[in-house]
Amino acid sequence: MKAAQVTGYHRKLELRDVDEPKITGPFDVVVKIGAAGVCRTDIHILEGQWAEKSGVTLPYTIGHENAGWVHAVGDAVTNVAVGDKVILHPLMTCGLCRACRLGDDVHCENSRFPGIDTHGGYAEYLLTSARSCVKLDDSLEPADVAALADAGLTAQHAAAKAAGFLRPGEVCVIIGAGGLGHIGIQCMKAMSAATLVVVDRNPAALELARQVGADVTVVADGSHVDEVLEVTGGHGAEAVIDFVGEGGSTAEGVRMLRRAGNYYVVGYGENINVPTIDVISTEINFIGNLVGSYTDLQDLMVLAAQGKVKLHTARYGLAEFQLAIDDLNAGKVRGRAILVP
Amino acid sequence: MKAAQVTGYHRKLELRDVDEPKITGPFDVVVKIGAAGVCRTDIHILEGQWAEKSGVTLPYTIGHENAGWVHAVGDAVTNVAVGDKVILHPLMTCGLCRACRLGDDVHCENSRFPGIDTHGGYAEYLLTSARSCVKLDDSLEPADVAALADAGLTAQHAAAKAAGFLRPGEVCVIIGAGGLGHIGIQCMKAMSAATLVVVDRNPAALELARQVGADVTVVADGSHVDEVLEVTGGHGAEAVIDFVGEGGSTAEGVRMLRRAGNYYVVGYGENINVPTIDVISTEINFIGNLVGSYTDLQDLMVLAAQGKVKLHTARYGLAEFQLAIDDLNAGKVRGRAILVP
Amino acid sequence: MKAAQVTGYHRKLELRDVDEPKITGPFDVVVKIGAAGVCRTDIHILEGQWAEKSGVTLPYTIGHENAGWVHAVGDAVTNVAVGDKVILHPLMTCGLCRACRLGDDVHCENSRFPGIDTHGGYAEYLLTSARSCVKLDDSLEPADVAALADAGLTAQHAAAKAAGFLRPGEVCVIIGAGGLGHIGIQCMKAMSAATLVVVDRNPAALELARQVGADVTVVADGSHVDEVLEVTGGHGAEAVIDFVGEGGSTAEGVRMLRRAGNYYVVGYGENINVPTIDVISTEINFIGNLVGSYTDLQDLMVLAAQGKVKLHTARYGLAEFQLAIDDLNAGKVRGRAILVP
Amino acid sequence: MKAAQVTGYHRKLELRDVDEPKITGPFDVVVKIGAAGVCRTDIHILEGQWAEKSGVTLPYTIGHENAGWVHAVGDAVTNVAVGDKVILHPLMTCGLCRACRLGDDVHCENSRFPGIDTHGGYAEYLLTSARSCVKLDDSLEPADVAALADAGLTAQHAAAKAAGFLRPGEVCVIIGAGGLGHIGIQCMKAMSAATLVVVDRNPAALELARQVGADVTVVADGSHVDEVLEVTGGHGAEAVIDFVGEGGSTAEGVRMLRRAGNYYVVGYGENINVPTIDVISTEINFIGNLVGSYTDLQDLMVLAAQGKVKLHTARYGLAEFQLAIDDLNAGKVRGRAILVP
Repeated sequence: MKAAQVTGYHRKLELRDVDEPKITGPFDVVVKIGAAGVCRTDIHILEGQWAEKSGVTLPYTIGHENAGWVHAVGDAVTNVAVGDKVILHPLMTCGLCRACRLGDDVHCENSRFPGIDTHGGYAEYLLTSARSCVKLDDSLEPADVAALADAGLTAQHAAAKAAGFLRPGEVCVIIGAGGLGHIGIQCMKAMSAATLVVVDRNPAALELARQVGADVTVVADGSHVDEVLEVTGGHGAEAVIDFVGEGGSTAEGVRMLRRAGNYYVVGYGENINVPTIDVISTEINFIGNLVGSYTDLQDLMVLAAQGKVKLHTARYGLAEFQLAIDDLNAGKVRGRAILVP
Repeated sequence: MKAAQVTGYHRKLELRDVDEPKITGPFDVVVKIGAAGVCRTDIHILEGQWAEKSGVTLPYTIGHENAGWVHAVGDAVTNVAVGDKVILHPLMTCGLCRACRLGDDVHCENSRFPGIDTHGGYAEYLLTSARSCVKLDDSLEPADVAALADAGLTAQHAAAKAAGFLRPGEVCVIIGAGGLGHIGIQCMKAMSAATLVVVDRNPAALELARQVGADVTVVADGSHVDEVLEVTGGHGAEAVIDFVGEGGSTAEGVRMLRRAGNYYVVGYGENINVPTIDVISTEINFIGNLVGSYTDLQDLMVLAAQGKVKLHTARYGLAEFQLAIDDLNAGKVRGRAILVP
Repeated sequence: MKAAQVTGYHRKLELRDVDEPKITGPFDVVVKIGAAGVCRTDIHILEGQWAEKSGVTLPYTIGHENAGWVHAVGDAVTNVAVGDKVILHPLMTCGLCRACRLGDDVHCENSRFPGIDTHGGYAEYLLTSARSCVKLDDSLEPADVAALADAGLTAQHAAAKAAGFLRPGEVCVIIGAGGLGHIGIQCMKAMSAATLVVVDRNPAALELARQVGADVTVVADGSHVDEVLEVTGGHGAEAVIDFVGEGGSTAEGVRMLRRAGNYYVVGYGENINVPTIDVISTEINFIGNLVGSYTDLQDLMVLAAQGKVKLHTARYGLAEFQLAIDDLNAGKVRGRAILVP
Repeated sequence: MKAAQVTGYHRKLELRDVDEPKITGPFDVVVKIGAAGVCRTDIHILEGQWAEKSGVTLPYTIGHENAGWVHAVGDAVTNVAVGDKVILHPLMTCGLCRACRLGDDVHCENSRFPGIDTHGGYAEYLLTSARSCVKLDDSLEPADVAALADAGLTAQHAAAKAAGFLRPGEVCVIIGAGGLGHIGIQCMKAMSAATLVVVDRNPAALELARQVGADVTVVADGSHVDEVLEVTGGHGAEAVIDFVGEGGSTAEGVRMLRRAGNYYVVGYGENINVPTIDVISTEINFIGNLVGSYTDLQDLMVLAAQGKVKLHTARYGLAEFQLAIDDLNAGKVRGRAILVP
């Protein structure tokens, strides 16, 4: 089959002929790829940023946001059958460690990550596990949702945590209305009656934010902390979800927070650097957020099937991977780029 | 001032001239009534059903769903000022017992209940406490929301409890789409992404249910348990909110429940009568629901101001109290009847 | 190997020579039995009470409270190795259904129950799954803990739920200080600072209850409801855990409950039969309790290793199964009986 | 009456004759001081560190950890009566703002803080509010518990939050076994079955820690992070409660934390300075902790009455305030110093 592979760092991907994956284990599932999301992480992989951390052996196929149709299954697979439409949780987890047994499979002690440390979905077929397969509703197609498998899932996971603590009219500030942010807004809107205040430097992103559910939008032009405080009667917001995490956003975001508020860290880059006296005197919390669990992905697919979470995608053929990457690099992709084999 | 008072049981209310209430305590608040909801409980009071339980001395003024404008305040009142639009929590609570200190003021050990055990709102003015006053948003008028103060608050309280446990696409069956039910549907819709299945005998009530957010409606015609099971793939619903509680609804509702599901008891009349073996083998829960707390009422007013909870009301003058009661008794009131002095 | 099998209902068990179980699936584990608990359910099985419900084919080996040493493992087993000391969760679960993925494996949609619907542990060896194996601490031996695998786990599960809601000095009434009850007392004591009031008809059981942590004991002699109310200042208890569930215990237990209290149903036999008006006017809850999850069993083994949960056991050889059953029937067993092959 | 007052910053306290406080408001309570804790904050006040923040007018009486006997009450006080033994919550709260109504009174929008911004308890009598009074069990005396009113309450509050998330055998690292730490250890032990690993530079403090419940103690000698990791099988602890918050403890503490772990910030001084990439890749949380609420103080008094929380105190007469402060400054106080008028 065809697969776009990393053959060396600081080089372009190569489209190569490789063997189709085969079922060898009882819970193995081979998926015919319907679409694979093209993500900024893919560019970082090519730059070698993940080489040491992942320990992967070259050449290998990238692509960690995958959806498609079940093509073959191992003996013990009972949750999906050949022909089923599925989206794949980004991790392959063991199901036996305490984290998995608690339902917190993202912290599995024995997980693998296709597209990062093993072959991913820039290919015609992908080997995964029954534990990674979420069946799609009849109304959804793999190409509609593939790009939600990792970035979207992260936004949904953070939004679900925040929504669980927010009562009607309490304020959630969302910093960053880009790829993750605009999914997060839709998830928050679906799961809570909180008031959503969205902050971004880009007025066009704020226009989109309003369309998908922002109640108030604030341009990050230097006076945005004051504006948020004004909107909240001087008290600050019960929650801040920070999808940026760099360029000073954490320091600004903390100033937007109400006493006893929760700061959800999603984007990353800079340090949280805050005096402990401020943390205790206002009794605020910082909540880390990784990608969501398997059941979070089930929930996100429900929201997609309900029409409450929508994602704009730009389609490319598998062989057009370079164009997709170039467009992403050039900021030409509206929504998310996907490769459709 | 004028007040419609109970002067004896099994008799009609009488419109009488009584003294206006005065401020005597530091947290006292006198409210000029903007509207008072007419409730089936008022009819039960006249029938003497509450005589012994409330221990009230006749004559007294009924009306326990009240909203209006602050007319006078005691020395220590800081949360409202003369002229403010307010809705009144049905209970006057002490603020000092452990329940109050935990925020669970509905279980206050020293509460009074205007309209039940002390003078209520079928009058021009009402004496209440600062602790009962919730300020209204500029966009709301007392007459819009008065009838939410007790029945609506009960529906919102049960819905908030249920919403806290329901993930997207999990099913909540709502039994009864009448006064409380149609508020409960709107609250659930605002606070969760659960799938709402509404069951009622009355097709017209189900039509209204669909308009305010029901995803699926089921006529209670004998096959309704099977229909709900079919909708849920044979598993049953994660939650049932029972706004009826009589005529066999609890036995039917339990059959609609999924393993580990929650049954919210709101309506009352019959007994819950269920084998303990069924409770433990399916590990289901029965959750009691009384009226909501003060902060629940704040939340409900937020939902009303957001336009997410709407109530149809039929207006009567204070002097038309008998017509309102007669219409209620005759089933002629669409939505809720209110008295507007 | 030797196994004590059901060869017909209303007959005694027979000790028979049967084939040792073999590994056939990737997650299979064969355990050399160290001890198997003898439970009243085993007697009910012989009486045919489970015949229809379990659908099991005779002859088969009973015994559903098992611990021992890992004897052989399938290819995919990573959590235990040959020679490990293990206790077995009573259920073999699929790991793929939504309940399993949420960590709520007791509600697995595809579980089997060794000793009930497939071969159990009254034998030298038992076939189970990697997902059922909890490794024991060095300080524990299989015979010490086997009898905790089902009944003890149920008590721990209910106690953990109750402890999560009880603040220091809040009152938990425990009805029944027998097999489950005295484990429940120890678990509550380890996990909370609640005040434990234990009610039982048997003064000897109450003496044991005091030794393992009861703060107050009350003989169920007719005045026990009043006594509990007196102990709680007339308010009733924040929680009642009912390990009896028959003979009127639920009606009495509800009277012992404080407003907004939780009633944990564990024992079974009679019906809960309570007016909905009482449920809503006091806003009480009934919480069903089944056996604990896999992680609950891990927790219980931690409590055992910490010395906080202790169980008295009476040992019998595998061939002495009939004596064990007769002693249990005659009320001669102090603590729990176990078969040690 | 006599009162030890601040008459100027950078000067010693002066014992002065001042008027006894009088009841003027309906919820006023005058307490005859039984004991007042002497706290490092008192020294900071004298150094002028709180001058600007508190805005207090000199001269005024300090002392913010107070217990005694009710001496006089306002008209509306129902929860205590003259003669009652009481401990005083450090804050006087309004009872009307949303925080108060939610039971989260520490975040009251209108609170006063006797001993900080109004007259405190280094005196014979103190004016407080009914909302601050917690009645003591017969078995407790004001002098036994006064020093728990602020520092101890902070430790209990953090411990209660942590205990709520910790299952049996999960590890809680406690950094700092000083005044707060050794209360925190006792609270954790009473409310959970977590394994407590206590870290301190001072071997004598660790000896005390073992006596009050530490399961493992680790000397902070440079290898302590590695030791904690070893104790936790390399995974780190599910929770860290940091009672130090300076001298590098936060950076070290974060390294001791398991994936998805909670870091409770109690002590303060330095900054939390941690890369957002570390926060999200391990999904850890930082939880701020201020003093506990009124109901937390009730709980702490229950633990004290149960004998589960004990505090060693060194007694000084009111006129000996300078000796107490000097001893505290010189590190000569074992446990906590109290002034007993």
